[in-house]
Amino acid sequence: MTSTRTTRRIIAVGSGKGGVGKSTLSANLAVSLARRGMRVGLIDADIYGPSQPRLLGAEGRKPTATDEKKLVPVQTEYGIGMLSMGQLVKPGQAIAWRGPMAGNALGQLIDADWGETETLIVDLPPGTGDVQLTMIQKYKPAGAVIVSTPQDLALIDARRAINLLTEADVPIIGLVENMAGYQCPECGAISDPFGTGGAEAAAQELGYDFLGRIPLELGIRTASDEGIPPAASGGPGADAFNAVAGKLTDWIAR
Amino acid sequence: MTSTRTTRRIIAVGSGKGGVGKSTLSANLAVSLARRGMRVGLIDADIYGPSQPRLLGAEGRKPTATDEKKLVPVQTEYGIGMLSMGQLVKPGQAIAWRGPMAGNALGQLIDADWGETETLIVDLPPGTGDVQLTMIQKYKPAGAVIVSTPQDLALIDARRAINLLTEADVPIIGLVENMAGYQCPECGAISDPFGTGGAEAAAQELGYDFLGRIPLELGIRTASDEGIPPAASGGPGADAFNAVAGKLTDWIAR
Repeated sequence: MTSTRTTRRIIAVGSGKGGVGKSTLSANLAVSLARRGMRVGLIDADIYGPSQPRLLGAEGRKPTATDEKKLVPVQTEYGIGMLSMGQLVKPGQAIAWRGPMAGNALGQLIDADWGETETLIVDLPPGTGDVQLTMIQKYKPAGAVIVSTPQDLALIDARRAINLLTEADVPIIGLVENMAGYQCPECGAISDPFGTGGAEAAAQELGYDFLGRIPLELGIRTASDEGIPPAASGGPGADAFNAVAGKLTDWIAR
Repeated sequence: MTSTRTTRRIIAVGSGKGGVGKSTLSANLAVSLARRGMRVGLIDADIYGPSQPRLLGAEGRKPTATDEKKLVPVQTEYGIGMLSMGQLVKPGQAIAWRGPMAGNALGQLIDADWGETETLIVDLPPGTGDVQLTMIQKYKPAGAVIVSTPQDLALIDARRAINLLTEADVPIIGLVENMAGYQCPECGAISDPFGTGGAEAAAQELGYDFLGRIPLELGIRTASDEGIPPAASGGPGADAFNAVAGKLTDWIAR
C-alpha cells in the first residue's frame, strides 16, 4: 500500500467555484497525457456532481472489485482507467452523504486497483470541504492545477482554493483560464461573455505559472455531452487542451 | 424560536452543479420581491464559495450580534437584509470546514435576528451534501427553485438535487434555465454556447413548472461583478429576473 502510494503521483485539478470547466479540463488532460505515452488514471472526486462517466463515454459501466475488495477502474476507450462516484449510484439519484462519507469515498477511489498507473488526475469537487481536506491530509497531491473563468466571482473562489492547497504545502502547478473567447457562429467575431485575462492576471499577481486559456466553444460542449473528449479526437479546443497538457508534462518531468 | 421559524417562509434556490448562476438568480429574486413590497432576507449558504457580498455590493461589511449572540443581518442598499459566510472570513482565505461545521454555520445564518422578515431566500451550495441535509432536516423550506444551464451535464446534476428535495417532501416551485441565448456584441446574432431549451424540457418531463429563461448577457456579468443586481436598476436581464420573481410571488400567494 505504502509503496504504491509513494510511486504514484497525484495531480489534483481544482477550482473554488463549480461550473468553470474543471471536469472537462481534467478529462482532456488525462487523455492528452495518455496520448503522450504516460500511464494515466482519472478519479472523479466530484462526489455530488460526478461528470466523468458522461465526459468519457462510460455511462452505465460499473467498476468491478478484486478479492481484496479494491475497486477495479473502468477502462475507457481513450487509454485511461477511470473511477467515479457516478458509477456507484443510479442516474438522477442524489448522493446524500455527509462529509465523512464523502471523505471515505475518496479513499476508496484512490486506494483502488490502479495497477501500473503512474499518474492519477483527480478531478476535485468545488470548494474547500471534506473531500479536499481528506485529500491533503491523507493523499497529498504532487501538485495542483487550478481552473477559473476570467470572472471576478470565480477568481475570488479560486484564491480560496489556492489558499487551502498552499497552506498544506501542495505545489500549485499553475492556473488555467476557461471560457475565455467565444466565437459568434454567425459572424465569427470573438467576444467574452465571462470577460478575459482575469486568470492570467491572477496567476501573475500570485506568482504562479499561467498554463493556458481554453476557449468557450460550442464544439467543446457538444463533444463533451457526447462523451468524446476533444483532446482524443483532435476536435474543437484540442490544441488548447494539448498545450496545457504539454506544460503539465514539463512540470512532471522537471 | 419556534414561532419565528413557523411564520417565516424559506425559499431555497438550488442547483446540482455550481457555476450555473444560482447566486445571481438568488440575489435578483430577493431584490425583485423586495421591490414588490415583500419583506425579504437573503442567506448565502454557499459555504465554500460565498458570492452574495460581492453581488450585493456589501463586501467587507460585517454583521453584528445581539446580546443573545444572534447575528444581525447586514442591510444592503437594495432593501434586503443579508447574511453570508463570506462576511465572517477574510477574502482569499479558504473556509476549510468539514461538513458538521458547515451544517452548524447554516443554523447560525438562519437562526439570526431576522426581525420582520417574512421570506428568506436561501442560496444553497451546489450538490447534495451537509448544508442541504441540515436544511431539509432542520429548516425545511416551503419550496425550492432549481436553476440549471441547458447543458446535459448540468441537467444530470439538477435531477440529483431535485431527487434529494422531493424525497424530503420539499415542493419544487419550478425550474429556471440560465445562460441560454448569447447575443453577439458585434452582429447581434443570438447563439447558445450552452445549448437551449434543456431545462424547459426537463421541467416538462419531470412535471414541474418552468419559471423562465435568463439570457447569458455580458451586462449581467459586469453588473454582478460590480455589486449592482440588474433587478434593482432595470439593468440588463432585469425583465427576465422580474418575470421569474413574478411567478415566485404567485406561488407564494397561492
